[in-house]
Amino acid sequence: MLTLFQYNWQVRNEWFEWCKQVPEDELYAKRTGGVGSILKTLYHIVEVEYSWIQILQGKPDIEEAFHKYDTLQEVIDLSEEFHPEVEEYIQNWSKQMEEELDLRFNKFRKGEVLRHMITHEIHHSGQLSVWSREIGRKPVSSNLIDRGLVLSK
Amino acid sequence: MLTLFQYNWQVRNEWFEWCKQVPEDELYAKRTGGVGSILKTLYHIVEVEYSWIQILQGKPDIEEAFHKYDTLQEVIDLSEEFHPEVEEYIQNWSKQMEEELDLRFNKFRKGEVLRHMITHEIHHSGQLSVWSREIGRKPVSSNLIDRGLVLSK
Repeated sequence: MLTLFQYNWQVRNEWFEWCKQVPEDELYAKRTGGVGSILKTLYHIVEVEYSWIQILQGKPDIEEAFHKYDTLQEVIDLSEEFHPEVEEYIQNWSKQMEEELDLRFNKFRKGEVLRHMITHEIHHSGQLSVWSREIGRKPVSSNLIDRGLVLSK
Repeated sequence: MLTLFQYNWQVRNEWFEWCKQVPEDELYAKRTGGVGSILKTLYHIVEVEYSWIQILQGKPDIEEAFHKYDTLQEVIDLSEEFHPEVEEYIQNWSKQMEEELDLRFNKFRKGEVLRHMITHEIHHSGQLSVWSREIGRKPVSSNLIDRGLVLSK
């Protein structure tokens, strides 16, 4: 599972780099589908991933996060701020945790949540790729192959 | 890994059902991004998945497949025709195969290919969701949670 997270993190960082080459207005522009803009999508990806990690661990939500997505740099900073805790959780994942329930709601199987987190980010990244073409830009590659990813044990 | 494939197969079938509710012209209409239309995307998903399974097993490509995507029903039929072989391969997957190389090119690690197949379909499904909103339709849910999926061993 770690491999798929590493794929997502690489792709996300490539979208951040892609955003730096694009006129800022395009990042804020309202678009059809998804959560409505490129920047909001990236914020949403970051926020949702972290929220699930909090839920899995039975920690409270970080309320102030919702006001931090005004600029690309703030979203990048938020992603970097959250990343160590997310990565640590994924790195320490073990097969025994698959069927355990989350520690906040005692409702979601942890293995299901992890897979949901993976597919959630890829799904939104696919949306970004359409919007990218709409503004005449080549999207980030969605290929997983040839990224030199280490395969999870 | 099987769980993520089962997720993709469920979502794909939901897109097929979704397509049946949509005016046929919309399935053929040229769109920005991805492979250019809703029907072509679904064909592409089906074809790429099967092609990888052939590569992994060292089997030749099925050339005639490229001419079968004229109608939704033909794409659905193609998906169903390919599915048993795909599913059997995924069901028989084992950890020992992760680092083995594909049997056609002797180049791609099998575990990398499997993950690529997973992310490929989710990515294109994300694109479909944007086009769905463009034509004023609610897209298929991309949620993995609450589908009652069995977690892979």
